Amino acid sequence: MSVPRWLKAIKDALAVPDNKGKVVYQVATVDSQNVPHARTQVNRGFIIPKSSPHLPLLVSSSDVRAPKVVQMLSNSAVELCWWMEGSQDQFRLLAKANIIPPPDSRLKTITSSLQGFSITALDEAGEESEDEGDRLGTDGKYDWEKKRREVFEGMKPAMRASWCAPVAPGSPISSYDEPSKWPREVPNLEDLKTDEDRKNYETALSNFAMVVFEPFKIDWVQLGEQPNRRTEFIRKGSADVVHWEEQIVAP
Amino acid sequence: MSVPRWLKAIKDALAVPDNKGKVVYQVATVDSQNVPHARTQVNRGFIIPKSSPHLPLLVSSSDVRAPKVVQMLSNSAVELCWWMEGSQDQFRLLAKANIIPPPDSRLKTITSSLQGFSITALDEAGEESEDEGDRLGTDGKYDWEKKRREVFEGMKPAMRASWCAPVAPGSPISSYDEPSKWPREVPNLEDLKTDEDRKNYETALSNFAMVVFEPFKIDWVQLGEQPNRRTEFIRKGSADVVHWEEQIVAP
Repeated sequence: MSVPRWLKAIKDALAVPDNKGKVVYQVATVDSQNVPHARTQVNRGFIIPKSSPHLPLLVSSSDVRAPKVVQMLSNSAVELCWWMEGSQDQFRLLAKANIIPPPDSRLKTITSSLQGFSITALDEAGEESEDEGDRLGTDGKYDWEKKRREVFEGMKPAMRASWCAPVAPGSPISSYDEPSKWPREVPNLEDLKTDEDRKNYETALSNFAMVVFEPFKIDWVQLGEQPNRRTEFIRKGSADVVHWEEQIVAP
Repeated sequence: MSVPRWLKAIKDALAVPDNKGKVVYQVATVDSQNVPHARTQVNRGFIIPKSSPHLPLLVSSSDVRAPKVVQMLSNSAVELCWWMEGSQDQFRLLAKANIIPPPDSRLKTITSSLQGFSITALDEAGEESEDEGDRLGTDGKYDWEKKRREVFEGMKPAMRASWCAPVAPGSPISSYDEPSKWPREVPNLEDLKTDEDRKNYETALSNFAMVVFEPFKIDWVQLGEQPNRRTEFIRKGSADVVHWEEQIVAP
């Protein structure tokens, strides 16, 4: 079993100089009224399990208080639309969204009951991931909390500060200036100096959720090719017989 | 009544040099299984009704045979996510999608029964639009077919050819080379020379749907501002007392 061709295609596209910085995709979700929503999110990397490299995951993040978390918990089906303008590639990834909140979050029970197939496989294998070093927990399972903290540590100080806003994203506030009273930067763990820094770091970490996408259908359109090309990859089978079926389709 | 502030904001953002060419957004829809989908679409312009400039519409297009048309007909709620990387502005537009198919399309009855408020207002006023000249039909109503043909005429020949593919977008085909046997360019009306050109033009036009989005909630995030700004615009009221409520919210 090896890394699927669609992931190689995404990484190849990301390596095209004209696609520099194109690490964002739009994530579509459905709310409880069956109304769709979409917003831009940053891809924070991939998880490629050693024992199941054919089932890679994509990592993003959210404030636990954001509406998209509620939406993903009530309907975990999402579609990522990754448009790489430079090479004119569009990747659409139909996926199951897994929310990884802080261990003591009230969301933890819900998220545990909803976890997807790859997540479970990774849990049970309890192994390190190929790309990014050891995350084996003391219980022999994959250490999601360690990974969540690493992703959090990888953020810029200004971004990290966004998770210690005193109100949830989208809440009414009185003026554009109000956020200037909120923490503007939260340093990395090793650069925390004051008690306030440490308090802000903890607050931000407590509002920080990792979002892990497990794709099961990919639609790749290559508008940079003449004639245009379009390929679908569909996950078939279950457990260790999972494989990807590839089909050329009309662009 | 005047053009809403959110439309001015979109047009201002589009005019920023670093946003050159950023005329695409991702359109999120929901299918009959309540699974979300998102794909990149090109914005083909705005319609600003003279008697109701506060209710502007956005124009895009689709192949009538595309799955998104089925999705928009079964659930007309969509969200457009318009990320303008240059200025770091994100506009999310919750909207009602209106499909404008060819007049003789089997979809016509469905689409007519689903049309939104602005569309009806424009129909009844039967007036020209502010930006783009007279489209008053002989029956005193807005001439949607005329507009559909104009948008079609505005396409590049290679794009226009995509609508005369012999199979629907997404249908399985045998090889990447197969589309090279299909028409590669369909000229503008005045440049049609051969019978084949004329046939292809008619085929493409018969598969071409205009998609008109009627926004009712806009979420504008300005990541280029420090502190970041976020503003919501919500359509309130009905008929000629419709207005936009503006609220500053936490970014």
